[in-house]
Amino acid sequence: MKRNVLIIGAGGVAQVVAHKCAQHNDVLGNIHIASRTVEKCQQIVDSVREKGSLKTAGELQAHALDALDVEATKTLIDKTQSQMVINVGSPFINMSVLEACIQMGVAYLDTAIHEDPEKICETPPWYANYEWKRKQRCADKGITAILGVGFDPGMVNTYAAAAVKEDYFDRVESIDIIDINAGSHGHYFATNFDPEINFREFTGRVWSWQNNAWVKNKMFEVKRTDDLPVVGSQTSYMTGHDEIHSLSHNLDVPNVRFWMGFGEHYINVFTVLNSLGLLSEQPVLTAEGQEVVPLKVVKAILPDPSSLAPNYTGKTCIGDLVKGQKDGQDKEIFIYNVADHEEAYAEVGSQGISYTAGVPPVAAALLIASGEWDVSHMVNVEELPHRPFINLLNEMGLPTRIKDEQGDRPLSF
Amino acid sequence: MKRNVLIIGAGGVAQVVAHKCAQHNDVLGNIHIASRTVEKCQQIVDSVREKGSLKTAGELQAHALDALDVEATKTLIDKTQSQMVINVGSPFINMSVLEACIQMGVAYLDTAIHEDPEKICETPPWYANYEWKRKQRCADKGITAILGVGFDPGMVNTYAAAAVKEDYFDRVESIDIIDINAGSHGHYFATNFDPEINFREFTGRVWSWQNNAWVKNKMFEVKRTDDLPVVGSQTSYMTGHDEIHSLSHNLDVPNVRFWMGFGEHYINVFTVLNSLGLLSEQPVLTAEGQEVVPLKVVKAILPDPSSLAPNYTGKTCIGDLVKGQKDGQDKEIFIYNVADHEEAYAEVGSQGISYTAGVPPVAAALLIASGEWDVSHMVNVEELPHRPFINLLNEMGLPTRIKDEQGDRPLSF
Repeated sequence: MKRNVLIIGAGGVAQVVAHKCAQHNDVLGNIHIASRTVEKCQQIVDSVREKGSLKTAGELQAHALDALDVEATKTLIDKTQSQMVINVGSPFINMSVLEACIQMGVAYLDTAIHEDPEKICETPPWYANYEWKRKQRCADKGITAILGVGFDPGMVNTYAAAAVKEDYFDRVESIDIIDINAGSHGHYFATNFDPEINFREFTGRVWSWQNNAWVKNKMFEVKRTDDLPVVGSQTSYMTGHDEIHSLSHNLDVPNVRFWMGFGEHYINVFTVLNSLGLLSEQPVLTAEGQEVVPLKVVKAILPDPSSLAPNYTGKTCIGDLVKGQKDGQDKEIFIYNVADHEEAYAEVGSQGISYTAGVPPVAAALLIASGEWDVSHMVNVEELPHRPFINLLNEMGLPTRIKDEQGDRPLSF
Repeated sequence: MKRNVLIIGAGGVAQVVAHKCAQHNDVLGNIHIASRTVEKCQQIVDSVREKGSLKTAGELQAHALDALDVEATKTLIDKTQSQMVINVGSPFINMSVLEACIQMGVAYLDTAIHEDPEKICETPPWYANYEWKRKQRCADKGITAILGVGFDPGMVNTYAAAAVKEDYFDRVESIDIIDINAGSHGHYFATNFDPEINFREFTGRVWSWQNNAWVKNKMFEVKRTDDLPVVGSQTSYMTGHDEIHSLSHNLDVPNVRFWMGFGEHYINVFTVLNSLGLLSEQPVLTAEGQEVVPLKVVKAILPDPSSLAPNYTGKTCIGDLVKGQKDGQDKEIFIYNVADHEEAYAEVGSQGISYTAGVPPVAAALLIASGEWDVSHMVNVEELPHRPFINLLNEMGLPTRIKDEQGDRPLSF
């Protein structure tokens, strides 16, 4: 039974993780939150206390930590006696935090793939460039490391596993992951999570897995329109995304694509910024000789994603549209979740995007604590049993539904 | 007879000024070019020599100068024995350069109003905030200071003076200055002069002079469409601009407005940047703690305006639409110039916008040299005799035309 959780990061997702850990601290034990800016961690601690989210009396503390500093992270893991680290900080710190966990012999969870600040859209599969290089060391030391266990990646990987492993299909032809935010934040423009990470997804090549091979496209080059549950008709665009890079490797499915919904206004603002070079991660020199990364300035002038929560309305719909054959017939199913921005804010003080990303790693931590997912090696989510995860999240605020030829209904096992 | 010219600045306008001074160095004497970056001055010197623009053998030298340093500027004026300073540097340096000229007893010319880097769209009339506070000192010391003697402000002030002082009207009701660039630079987006200065014109209030009072509007709030000579039907937007602030003071005309032409694409890009806060002159703090002025980053990523020249095609049309009464009848005239980007590049290596701004101050310097404009006090252009200026510019590459009920024809006196 692993206990005591160290949360690294202090953004909107960390806020959700902290609240959800607190709601289950009878199982998870002490909760510690660490990031560069201790004040942001303390705000999360205060928010958890204000909402009375702690299920039982227990430790809940904020810490200052530069998570690129492996020794400092090891010291904090030791000091807090944490047996699980949930890394929801910047994707630039993944490899450092993972290294600290391997050296300390504790479980590691994250919700997004590692990124090098100076590179975008690297050669696929992305996990092979960083995390998977530590697979052997995790296995040798018996480290449970669960990669990408947010919503997408994360829940959508579980949905893909369910589609392939349950009895829906004899053969799966394609998995199209569709991510629609039909919510409204009321600002001229904002991103729902760190703008720097958000834009980096769209400024380079779009990799997809088609006919068992990697295919390159440009952003906004390929789109689709679907009539989806609750959110209705929505246009989404083929986008590069983490989960394609593990699903294509771990499941025998010839087509895995990711589609993200964008409104025309978002695309216009993005196109202007990108065409001008303002989304570049490469520094430029001002006339005064100051070296500046344009993307970091764009991030500085946009609303802080965690500030969007109080006025966010509407819903998200994220799911896997899976097509294949069953008993000689073509068949398709849509496994999905709908989340509500206002409900998320009422419960944990964050908007729906943060909520969908922050609840799953806490469910995963609970499954590690119970032993069901404490697998003692490095995995992506589709390699783990999908049933307990879906069932647990049905109880924790992210209910799964399925839509197929038999209708639209809750999914549980 | 004043001789020897010190040009301060090394952008596209300075390039034009240098070439035109060189073409008249038999009258103007030695030519010196100074800016922070001496290499840019040297490039201009090289360009003048390559095109063989010097009319007679004479000095032509580049200098490094921080023009905010009054003592350094005085030393350079003394060292170069310059009796006229043409300031075409950043509008932030006007007051420093003017001070150096007053102290050294030499003539001062500029093409744009002084600006405080930290302020935009100050209280009208703008000249009263800075330059006009030195009127008495100029008069006391017999300093000829000609403010805003580019095209707009500059030539358009002369056109306004001609409309009021010649025999066209018994009474002038309105002067609408219309500035259309119907050229194409081939880039996704670029500004025709320093983006920092360009955008500062549009990010605050739009001041206009209507019914003998200052009126405030927002940018892009008021527009008009005119069928103009050569460039055809063009939409322009009411814009705050220097010349309104002197014409409203010096001419007894109840309505003075400025209109700048913008395409839909320009407005879209501008609106996105401005709505996001990327055109702000106020510093922001990045997540890494770096203090950055967003506008300076936008400037850094946009094409250098002087780099646009080689591929610029098309024409500009800038003029004064003047309405009033003559002999009891309503009447209107349009006094204007059409300039060609390719012809400007062929002659002086700059595009048309720089050309229209850079030729007039050299004509003014020639009129100071000849004594006609050597008035020994501080003036705006509409206070000076308009006839010699229009006649001289007809010969120097910026011919004036007039369109009225008698047709469309060259204007000279």
